[in-house]
Amino acid sequence: MGAAQSSADEFVREPLGVQERITADGSSPWPVEAGRYRLVAARACPWANRIVITRRLLGLEPVLSMGIAGPLHDERSWRFHNDPGNVDPVLGIEYLRTAYEKAVPGYDKGVTVPAMVEVASGKVVTNAYRELEFDLSTQWTALHRAGAPDLWPVEHRDEIAAISDEVFHDVNNGVYKCGFAKGQRSYEKAYDALFARLDALSSRLSTQRYLVGDTITQADIRLWVTLVRFDAAYHGHFKCNRQKLTELPVLWAYARDLFQTPGFGDTIDFAQIKQHYYGVHTEINPTGIVPEGPDVSGWLTEHGRESLGGRPFGRGTPPGPPPAGEQVPPLT
Amino acid sequence: MGAAQSSADEFVREPLGVQERITADGSSPWPVEAGRYRLVAARACPWANRIVITRRLLGLEPVLSMGIAGPLHDERSWRFHNDPGNVDPVLGIEYLRTAYEKAVPGYDKGVTVPAMVEVASGKVVTNAYRELEFDLSTQWTALHRAGAPDLWPVEHRDEIAAISDEVFHDVNNGVYKCGFAKGQRSYEKAYDALFARLDALSSRLSTQRYLVGDTITQADIRLWVTLVRFDAAYHGHFKCNRQKLTELPVLWAYARDLFQTPGFGDTIDFAQIKQHYYGVHTEINPTGIVPEGPDVSGWLTEHGRESLGGRPFGRGTPPGPPPAGEQVPPLT
Repeated sequence: MGAAQSSADEFVREPLGVQERITADGSSPWPVEAGRYRLVAARACPWANRIVITRRLLGLEPVLSMGIAGPLHDERSWRFHNDPGNVDPVLGIEYLRTAYEKAVPGYDKGVTVPAMVEVASGKVVTNAYRELEFDLSTQWTALHRAGAPDLWPVEHRDEIAAISDEVFHDVNNGVYKCGFAKGQRSYEKAYDALFARLDALSSRLSTQRYLVGDTITQADIRLWVTLVRFDAAYHGHFKCNRQKLTELPVLWAYARDLFQTPGFGDTIDFAQIKQHYYGVHTEINPTGIVPEGPDVSGWLTEHGRESLGGRPFGRGTPPGPPPAGEQVPPLT
Repeated sequence: MGAAQSSADEFVREPLGVQERITADGSSPWPVEAGRYRLVAARACPWANRIVITRRLLGLEPVLSMGIAGPLHDERSWRFHNDPGNVDPVLGIEYLRTAYEKAVPGYDKGVTVPAMVEVASGKVVTNAYRELEFDLSTQWTALHRAGAPDLWPVEHRDEIAAISDEVFHDVNNGVYKCGFAKGQRSYEKAYDALFARLDALSSRLSTQRYLVGDTITQADIRLWVTLVRFDAAYHGHFKCNRQKLTELPVLWAYARDLFQTPGFGDTIDFAQIKQHYYGVHTEINPTGIVPEGPDVSGWLTEHGRESLGGRPFGRGTPPGPPPAGEQVPPLT
């Protein structure tokens, strides 16, 4: 993605397979419409988590249902193995691949989450998560809840884009570049970039509560989905181990603050995160054994970030609790 | 070792191959003698580290030379790949296996360190590290330095034996049982026993500086060799990840205290520890990539354990610095 130089043993993320837009302005064949689409996510996946949080904050649950693929793959990728009968109850499919193949006969690209599926046809409309999260905020406005926050304030969009680009390359994708490097040098390059970026972010967040402006924006969602998985998956499994998140005081407090904010921690299932990473990547964890740790009880401790000011939802309000069927297990 | 119950997917340590004693009392064919033997160790190995520390504390360096196998194996196990020409300068061998085969033609057991090798014959005399560490303290007394501490005070031997047995099963060997478990249940059983034991040790060490009595004993050496490797190897590589050592305040202070005590930290090479564990166990780390972390700068910070009292070396004195050729790299 982008023009980054890469050597043969660096991890390079596959391009996405179905890049449509869902819009309210008639600019695409896919109109925004209540009940027309189903978001397929997975609790494990950070890219899906971005959309799941965005949907929660904007209150789109009543108009955009959600299917949740289980954490474990077989050779056909994401599947609904946690659902009764191993079938998504709305789409009636066992494998997400089926919805990709309906959209693109002979589909040969990655079967990824998040995926937006048209319920009536069973076809994937898009798996372009970056466009999707922008469109949920800017095209789906008529369907937002009352009090939905502005995650892309117009006056801050350039700054959100700039910091998101750094966070994407060095952090979101950076942890994968560490974990899937095929050589020592590629790993070290990714590790150094990751921790240099985390240090810069720590510095930035030491004097302000959120990344951009004084409210939660999409930039925070994007950073947070990697931070929340850091100790459970990336620290050990991907060898991102200079420190644990719990040993980086500013980022740990920032991550706890958001965890305790409605719409964030209530989307997290640490067991599924660990099952996915340790269970699916047998090329780096051949035994498939899933660690019992880390202890996650610290996520609910005081973070003290209120003293930095900030208005989490700006002129908006926090979302209510997740709808029935979407609750995650309590921290244990 | 012992009669522990085991299931098919539990790690079971191989019995040792050459179990002789080196004694001063004529009870074995191998007399204690200055210059007769060479200790073959490896910086990576905790079992060897016990003997290396014991030798340092007792000041046996002038009478018992040391060869240091490098951290990486090929299919013939430990080898002297860090020595000029890849050959141990005293024994003149490339592979430690050669010394085992000289002692036992057709040797088919584990090639392990520590190993005591008779220099003249080039034969391994023993790799029985538990007997060896006891004999170094109790049979080699005539060759101890002035001020050598008593690591096995007679009045505390039963207590040292009892706690060492718990530490061996749950901690020293416990981390291996976590890392080499072939099934989830065996892993979890070992993990639970490990952290239960670490909690009990934390409690014990919260009010006393050392494990037994008020001086450093062999029990401390045995526990410490695992603690010092915990974050560098066992936390991630062996999935011992409820907390890092740095997150267990009592044990972390205890481990730092000993690290900063002459004879302990000056035997540690974190780079070799990581190279060995991550480079040799390709069955759990197929890429062989060695993590850059963890940050080890904390080892030299204040520990505050002096306030618990204790006399590190009892009526003895600290050892001097390691001899030329045995220095480890400074912490970076």
